[in-house]
Amino acid sequence: MPSPRIASPELQQEMDACREKINKTLKHLLPESDLAEQPLFEAMRYGVLNGGKRLRPFLVLQGAKLFGVDEMRARRVGAAIELVHSYSLIHDDLPAMDDADKRRGKPSLHKAYDDATAILAGDALLTMAFEVLADEETHADPRVRVELVKELASAAGPHGMVGGQMLDLIAEGESFDIGTISRLQRLKTGKLISFCCEAGAILGKANPAHRQALRNYAQDLGLAFQVTDDLLDVEGNAIEMGKDTGKDADAGKATFVTELGLEAARSRAEMLSAQAKRHLRCFDGGRGNMLCDVADYVLARRQ
Amino acid sequence: MPSPRIASPELQQEMDACREKINKTLKHLLPESDLAEQPLFEAMRYGVLNGGKRLRPFLVLQGAKLFGVDEMRARRVGAAIELVHSYSLIHDDLPAMDDADKRRGKPSLHKAYDDATAILAGDALLTMAFEVLADEETHADPRVRVELVKELASAAGPHGMVGGQMLDLIAEGESFDIGTISRLQRLKTGKLISFCCEAGAILGKANPAHRQALRNYAQDLGLAFQVTDDLLDVEGNAIEMGKDTGKDADAGKATFVTELGLEAARSRAEMLSAQAKRHLRCFDGGRGNMLCDVADYVLARRQ
Repeated sequence: MPSPRIASPELQQEMDACREKINKTLKHLLPESDLAEQPLFEAMRYGVLNGGKRLRPFLVLQGAKLFGVDEMRARRVGAAIELVHSYSLIHDDLPAMDDADKRRGKPSLHKAYDDATAILAGDALLTMAFEVLADEETHADPRVRVELVKELASAAGPHGMVGGQMLDLIAEGESFDIGTISRLQRLKTGKLISFCCEAGAILGKANPAHRQALRNYAQDLGLAFQVTDDLLDVEGNAIEMGKDTGKDADAGKATFVTELGLEAARSRAEMLSAQAKRHLRCFDGGRGNMLCDVADYVLARRQ
Repeated sequence: MPSPRIASPELQQEMDACREKINKTLKHLLPESDLAEQPLFEAMRYGVLNGGKRLRPFLVLQGAKLFGVDEMRARRVGAAIELVHSYSLIHDDLPAMDDADKRRGKPSLHKAYDDATAILAGDALLTMAFEVLADEETHADPRVRVELVKELASAAGPHGMVGGQMLDLIAEGESFDIGTISRLQRLKTGKLISFCCEAGAILGKANPAHRQALRNYAQDLGLAFQVTDDLLDVEGNAIEMGKDTGKDADAGKATFVTELGLEAARSRAEMLSAQAKRHLRCFDGGRGNMLCDVADYVLARRQ
């Protein structure tokens, strides 16, 4: 089996630049004040500005580039998605959920503050994401803004991310088959990643074929990402991951690795990554190269 | 001091009819399935379809009537607000927050299910509210839909409801002055009530003066509502309220009653209610009568 490529220097550079830009946009958007409720604002900043890789906003920026979208608009959409992603991690880490003490090597939000503040900070971040998308700075055309809102809500709600988190809770102690595990991951992480990849097409009013190509790319990429996550949960070590590893297996949760075995899971991830890249062939002149590199990176990442 | 009027038969009838309509819309909107994640959908229904008075949607429907808005549109907006209101109660009742075992005489959601399901059901309801508003069934004009999204997010987020909940947490053990308590209530309940009153004006593309009148009405109504809530917390009994009473005072929380005393708090509520009604004078031909009745009802309610 060929060993997967690591991130190309070009991709690494682009991802670093994107991370800087998104962090700047997030810092600008997140509330700050000296009012009595400022512990909430502090907690929101703690939960969002915590060294995340910003892979999701990177997908938005790259997708937007394909259609010549103004980068400031793409940055706002990328930031909104990162607010949603951050809220989901904050709530996921709560004692009633995954009960994780650490997140990216630092105390998780409820450990640094308390459970009540973590619940409220998550709620505030989720709500804020929709305010950012609905603001006219995100796009001059209200039709575009309202489509972004609708698609994000659909990806993050009961038929998307939250539904997937519920399945994930139920998976403890249940023995789901590989079909249900795929669905779980499609809901829990896949739909939001799909939205990331499609957002540029929405902002750029792309034709349906291009939008569909990005949707297909996202579907395979998202699943490759999740299978790799399951592999890392078994193979990774706590220092590299910055969080507890082996937790899913310990909790008796069905994952791609417990269902398929290590080798078959690794092959599945590689097959999905290759398939993801094939969907990008419709973008000529090498315009899709960076997104192809992402499909390689997702396999090769060690954290 | 004249004793305040109770709800007029006409108002009671309208409120009952509104409750039926909104419950029907909510039942239609809330997800249902036999998929593995269906405990989430069940919990969402449990948390929303629990005998609520639907006062907020009533305000939306009455405001929309002033501008001849199609009632089906107003019902969707009213339902979206009720999803947000329900999510806030579900998260508020959690052990990490108010730790309330009962809500409207029944076990609170985390008691009927568990804490994790309550967190996720709240998250799902909040997200769904924005999906409902962004859907074109809510209004044909995307400009209207995106404005509804933006205003709801602003009312419910860190500078609105969630900020108010944070202040409420901090208020335990702190001695806030009456100015900060007013601000707390304006954030925690007032801004969402303002949005309810303004939503009809947004749907009906009302002129700025009419929209401002409704905003002013809402501000006074919301505060009257909250002062009355504090009075009921002291004066009410657990059976009538369907929830624990006297909890705020027991927890040493500053309220209008602890700061002003019973008599002055009651006067304040009456003054605010009268002021709210004065803002409606710009709606001729008795069109604002039902909203005037609401201002009376808010004072007179016993639960």
